[in-house]
Amino acid sequence: MTITTICIIGAGNLGTKIALQAAISGFQVQVYDVDHSRLQRSSTEMNLLIDQLNKSGQKTNVPSVEVMERVYFTFNLAEALQAADVVIESVTEDAGIKSEVWKEIGKLAPAHTIFTTNTSYLLPSQFAEVSGRPEKFCAFHFHDVFHSRVVDIMPHEGTDAKVISILEGLGRKLNQIPILVKKEHSGYIFNTLLIAWIDAAGRLLTGEIAEVEAIDKSWMINFNMSAGPFGILDNVGLDTAWHITSSRRNPSSRAFAALLKAYVDQGKLGAKSGEGFYKYPNPSYKSVDFLK
Amino acid sequence: MTITTICIIGAGNLGTKIALQAAISGFQVQVYDVDHSRLQRSSTEMNLLIDQLNKSGQKTNVPSVEVMERVYFTFNLAEALQAADVVIESVTEDAGIKSEVWKEIGKLAPAHTIFTTNTSYLLPSQFAEVSGRPEKFCAFHFHDVFHSRVVDIMPHEGTDAKVISILEGLGRKLNQIPILVKKEHSGYIFNTLLIAWIDAAGRLLTGEIAEVEAIDKSWMINFNMSAGPFGILDNVGLDTAWHITSSRRNPSSRAFAALLKAYVDQGKLGAKSGEGFYKYPNPSYKSVDFLK
Repeated sequence: MTITTICIIGAGNLGTKIALQAAISGFQVQVYDVDHSRLQRSSTEMNLLIDQLNKSGQKTNVPSVEVMERVYFTFNLAEALQAADVVIESVTEDAGIKSEVWKEIGKLAPAHTIFTTNTSYLLPSQFAEVSGRPEKFCAFHFHDVFHSRVVDIMPHEGTDAKVISILEGLGRKLNQIPILVKKEHSGYIFNTLLIAWIDAAGRLLTGEIAEVEAIDKSWMINFNMSAGPFGILDNVGLDTAWHITSSRRNPSSRAFAALLKAYVDQGKLGAKSGEGFYKYPNPSYKSVDFLK
Repeated sequence: MTITTICIIGAGNLGTKIALQAAISGFQVQVYDVDHSRLQRSSTEMNLLIDQLNKSGQKTNVPSVEVMERVYFTFNLAEALQAADVVIESVTEDAGIKSEVWKEIGKLAPAHTIFTTNTSYLLPSQFAEVSGRPEKFCAFHFHDVFHSRVVDIMPHEGTDAKVISILEGLGRKLNQIPILVKKEHSGYIFNTLLIAWIDAAGRLLTGEIAEVEAIDKSWMINFNMSAGPFGILDNVGLDTAWHITSSRRNPSSRAFAALLKAYVDQGKLGAKSGEGFYKYPNPSYKSVDFLK
């Protein structure tokens, strides 16, 4: 199967980045969103990203005109799908909304089109049936596209093995490292490790075993990492962290969720709000004296 | 309180490194071990370490003769302790042996001497009473001395606050970053985070969610770390990892402990035996192609 055209459903932050990378990789790209203003913003963001990539030296001279000529923005779903070889759905992380979207895509897409969802915590089996072609349905989960160049490929039980291998090839063409998650698992691999690590850090803090800075220092020095769990949480956003943690049931996670909620209620959301576990723009963990 | 003389009890790998750093920092050092051959090996290792440090450029010209003149090796405990301001006990990680040693130290040390244990998983309260001076007893836990320059300070409930602050100062003089663990907690901070992270990786593997390399890649790319959980386990040693994991009771830890045991039974102990989750001396995760 030759993939020529990729259809991105949902022109948010990650959808925009995936679409841009697809165009850079030489694919024809259809970007669909219900919201017309979001399509305009997506186009603007792509041009800014191209500038950033060219300036950073990460890419060698991305030809912006040539790349942008391969991207077509539309709020007509039938038009977006008509030539699609692969759909990458990247709409709001809401099972109801995703189900509705997949019902529509299933009706309108050509018979050969492969269906993928970029969900972070939901499972492909939740949408495989409603899409009408479970054997062509798989999770294809991008992290950041340009910085963390990972794409998780996570089939559900009914996914055709051929689809997995096509997506592995496509992931590489999109300049990502494909990671196979053999069975459905909420959070894939990275978030599973990340949450376990952050939960442990939360237990140390809420159990009054150690302070934020002591916990971060311990990890940073031993593994030569530029941040510890609380520095990472500030970057994830404490609202997002609270949202994830509050769904967990064990007592220590609940204690940590309550602590995160207190920060969120005070408007302390992490780096984006100017304060979280650290104060921004110059958090102490980034200071040269922190590990002295 | 001025600290002039430090007594190291147990001349193993870590005891030797702590003693050497103490001598480099200008302290008089008494190194005690019951085993005379271990004292000789310790002395040889110190000279090798000085050479390595000078070659690595990590230290600026450690004067080996001058440093080694400050280290005195003895298998006479009374002699080792007679001028000690601080004792750093670094004997085998066995509660029975440590208790016996602390009973002896308590009888022989001067009244002002501060007592510290370098235990990794036991708690200072297990030895505080038997030492005869619980208020002067604290855990003082070194990681690697020269590479991971962290020292955990973990008091038990009866430790005098003055002792904590003296040990914080001493930790800095020993070129370490002191990390305060406010309450007793087995595994301190780093091992608590490490074990939670490795447990999660073990669950992904034994649950057949993903393969070793996929799990390591996910972490390495997202956090720009030079190893993932299984690469780290190979360096810790699968025998040590099995020893720690097998004491845990939840079903997923038990499944992972059983897997580790199978590796250990086959002689696959990790980097030190030539094979663990990866093959050595050139494990795939260190190859330039691994993250491509």
